[in-house]
Amino acid sequence: MTDYFDKHAERLQQALDTIQSRAAWSPFTDSPSRKIHGDAVDKGLAAFQARLHQPFELDQPGTIGYTGFEVSPYTQEPLGIVYPKTDLDVLYKAIHNALPAWRATSPRARVGVCMEIVERWNQNSFESAHAVMHTTGQSFPMAFAGGGPNAQERGLEALAHAWREMSHVLPSATWERAFGSTQVKLQKHYRLMPRGIAVVIACATFPTWNAYPALMANLATGNAVVVKPHPATILPMALAVAHARAVLREAGLDPNLVTLVADTAAEPLAKDLIARPDTAIIDFTGSAQFGAWIEQNAHGKLTFTETAGVNAVVLESTDNLKGLAQTLGSALCLFSKQMCTSPQNVYIPRQGLRVGDAALSFDETANALVESINGLLAEPARAAGILGAIQSENILNVVERAREIGQTRGKILRDAAPYAHPEFPNARTRTPLILGLDISDDDLYAREWFGPVIHFIAADTPDQALAQAARDAKQCGAINSYAYSTDAAFVERAQDAFADAGANLSVNLIGPMPLTYAAAFSDYHVSGMNPAGNATLTDASFVNGRFRIVQSRTQQ
Amino acid sequence: MTDYFDKHAERLQQALDTIQSRAAWSPFTDSPSRKIHGDAVDKGLAAFQARLHQPFELDQPGTIGYTGFEVSPYTQEPLGIVYPKTDLDVLYKAIHNALPAWRATSPRARVGVCMEIVERWNQNSFESAHAVMHTTGQSFPMAFAGGGPNAQERGLEALAHAWREMSHVLPSATWERAFGSTQVKLQKHYRLMPRGIAVVIACATFPTWNAYPALMANLATGNAVVVKPHPATILPMALAVAHARAVLREAGLDPNLVTLVADTAAEPLAKDLIARPDTAIIDFTGSAQFGAWIEQNAHGKLTFTETAGVNAVVLESTDNLKGLAQTLGSALCLFSKQMCTSPQNVYIPRQGLRVGDAALSFDETANALVESINGLLAEPARAAGILGAIQSENILNVVERAREIGQTRGKILRDAAPYAHPEFPNARTRTPLILGLDISDDDLYAREWFGPVIHFIAADTPDQALAQAARDAKQCGAINSYAYSTDAAFVERAQDAFADAGANLSVNLIGPMPLTYAAAFSDYHVSGMNPAGNATLTDASFVNGRFRIVQSRTQQ
Repeated sequence: MTDYFDKHAERLQQALDTIQSRAAWSPFTDSPSRKIHGDAVDKGLAAFQARLHQPFELDQPGTIGYTGFEVSPYTQEPLGIVYPKTDLDVLYKAIHNALPAWRATSPRARVGVCMEIVERWNQNSFESAHAVMHTTGQSFPMAFAGGGPNAQERGLEALAHAWREMSHVLPSATWERAFGSTQVKLQKHYRLMPRGIAVVIACATFPTWNAYPALMANLATGNAVVVKPHPATILPMALAVAHARAVLREAGLDPNLVTLVADTAAEPLAKDLIARPDTAIIDFTGSAQFGAWIEQNAHGKLTFTETAGVNAVVLESTDNLKGLAQTLGSALCLFSKQMCTSPQNVYIPRQGLRVGDAALSFDETANALVESINGLLAEPARAAGILGAIQSENILNVVERAREIGQTRGKILRDAAPYAHPEFPNARTRTPLILGLDISDDDLYAREWFGPVIHFIAADTPDQALAQAARDAKQCGAINSYAYSTDAAFVERAQDAFADAGANLSVNLIGPMPLTYAAAFSDYHVSGMNPAGNATLTDASFVNGRFRIVQSRTQQ
Repeated sequence: MTDYFDKHAERLQQALDTIQSRAAWSPFTDSPSRKIHGDAVDKGLAAFQARLHQPFELDQPGTIGYTGFEVSPYTQEPLGIVYPKTDLDVLYKAIHNALPAWRATSPRARVGVCMEIVERWNQNSFESAHAVMHTTGQSFPMAFAGGGPNAQERGLEALAHAWREMSHVLPSATWERAFGSTQVKLQKHYRLMPRGIAVVIACATFPTWNAYPALMANLATGNAVVVKPHPATILPMALAVAHARAVLREAGLDPNLVTLVADTAAEPLAKDLIARPDTAIIDFTGSAQFGAWIEQNAHGKLTFTETAGVNAVVLESTDNLKGLAQTLGSALCLFSKQMCTSPQNVYIPRQGLRVGDAALSFDETANALVESINGLLAEPARAAGILGAIQSENILNVVERAREIGQTRGKILRDAAPYAHPEFPNARTRTPLILGLDISDDDLYAREWFGPVIHFIAADTPDQALAQAARDAKQCGAINSYAYSTDAAFVERAQDAFADAGANLSVNLIGPMPLTYAAAFSDYHVSGMNPAGNATLTDASFVNGRFRIVQSRTQQ
């Protein structure tokens, strides 16, 4: 087989250095600029367009027809792509046939092949970006950066961890000690053994960002991977599977180490895959409800979940109200709040937000934020770049339910409305709904409202807000949290409270970096300490249960 | 608080070096010789005797009376010790109070305290050895070595892994990159967060060897530990808890970070502890049946199990029949086969075992082994040192059931019988029962017979035996396996087959080292690949799920 390790050794070494130093490093550029990428921009679009209204051929065993139904949130028209429909028994048999040779391949060679797959994904980032855009509703720049290079970097990060963990186990050792007057000398061999077949279940809104790391961590440690995309968002991961299979084939390996199982919302297959006795590992990104079902039903299987939660912002004081309103306003709008890291609940002190020597009332603070958002969304072209489109009809229903509530309780501080996308007149769009609530309304805000529904919550004091936000994170799950305060003691209390709740905290962030941005190699994503998920991108525990160690020892 | 890290830094460094090199290293001596230990020998016995017929005081919150009923397998008399009976709600409340300060203690300081606890256990090895002997039935030398220094070394090994894993996460980093034309600089802080309360459930026959590592791994990573010993074998872990609490107190820490919950067979408490929502981690050593119950019922809790299985010996050929018979004979007798690593099923080729140029028939091979065993057990004093006593009446019932089967199916190749223990005339003893079976009798041998029940199984060929043994390991669980062969190709097939089944293999081991011996720092114990357990002593995955990482980032 082709050895790709040396080709990528320098990049791997940089990744290894950076998962330790946690400094900033990007092997790939996340700007989709034509100046950087040249004709790859147009080639990617053409490649995407050529996929439409065609069967997506994968040459997989067990193909018994076609399935799949995706609708672009931008055109609200079907993509018209169908994917192999699979006889799972036949597919799993083929995967079992592929496993022994892959298991026997050295970790070094496996990591080399995986590095090449990441490289291949990167070369096809533009095609992938259009696929992400027209399934998830992300704007094109986000679909490129977040679904392409940033996701590939998280895959690389998982690979670096896999390599480091596997390197901790020597292949052999000589062991010698006396028993009584006799010296006993043993040669010991330690084999890294994969668990077998891993199922990676990807989500509808960020399919690649979580699935790439899981795919890489599984494959590098010797497992085979079955990718089960969300039925609304198949294409991005179908492309990832196709590219992985191509690299495996070119390397002289069995392509069935990476396979796709597509399904539809009407005939879902995730539970079938989870229930199969020979599914050994499950990686899941998606709803908290299904994540909990998996945790209850995947007895004895190694399970990694990332679901969602209730991310809070606690405002105590600032010396830069304008910057705060711009930065936080952007974060509340970004991708129409369809991200697992999006803030949802903004706590504003009833007695007023301290701004320098002044104090802004709840209404003044809320107004400043609403006006900032309105400013951001005033220009349709700019609004399109920030909001993107709404991934599904169901999310519009969530917004409608929230509006109805707002008409009877609390106050609608900003109403949701469609906006006219300049390029796609039929796009499914909605600007954010902002409800003004009281801290006593936790029956309303203390749960996830996935989509453009935001709560501004009046609290008696910043510390009351902090306690409530941390409690919600613990009980409902949270990935990120945000605090603004010029009071070092309050910041420290916020750090303690959110650490205790297992929600990462960003303090006083103002500027062009999206608040929700999580950098590969540096930002740990999901703590595993609350219902938002049990796995972290990427720590050692994301990787080292995926392989086991078996030894043999021989008398010398 | 007292800082013990520097005191133990050199020992920790040696442990760190050795978990990587897997070479032989023992910080402690596992011989109970008076020449080495001087008056510690007598002091340990006196300390044990002073514990008898007394309440075991622990000064734990929630004590509402006394419980516990242990019977010495050597005297068949009650030990007469009672332990605190606990109101779990009160105890857990006290543990919750102890957690924040321990969590805030640096990993360095925590590891220092844990090293001191291991040292304290070591200083009290003789007292512990008598406690192990008179609860488990182990012979005194085994109770000292396996229950003392060897168990302490596995605790140290877990500590080294905990330290290495925690060291992989820097406390902070500076991160800087451009967004557009703006340079964004963040200071990031990474906190190691324990999960909370860990329950360590110890077993009846080897209480300390598995529980010490779990206790250390949990405590070092910032969790509190509730120890729940087997109701038949409380004293060894009660001593471990008492010593740990003493060290914690001396260090100025809350002793409730390590507590004991004792129970009786009539009123067991393990399920109550597992079901408590604030039990976050479960470590279990014991029966496969209860282990499976835990895996089905510990939803979402981090669970580490080590149960048991069917360990096989496959005989193909040897050039040292006498050595083989002595070494294997000893292993079949050691501690009356009450070890999770004891061989149970010995496969002998029907066509004959090749010995040099000759071939021994099944009967000749079986006879050689039986005679070797009879020789080992001829002298009561020597027999006592090897067999020890039978831990419980229930194990005698297992032997009786096997005898009854042997009278109707297969053949009794060696009958079980009590032997007269030279020191303890009332000891509960039984020499091994050996049944001759056919490979088609897998309804009889393909399950665990815990205690002195051994099967000699006639196979058509060594490869048929290998296939059956590996299948049994996969389906019923196995920790160790053993093969004897002078044929390099057969050895390779055995290595592949048992690796695939997740059972460690010892090849051609002949000599004074007990076959079942597993060395801390070098031998991985339990692969996690079959029903014999999901955790390995000790790899990185035994440790690094016990803590999580939460970050906060601040604009610079």
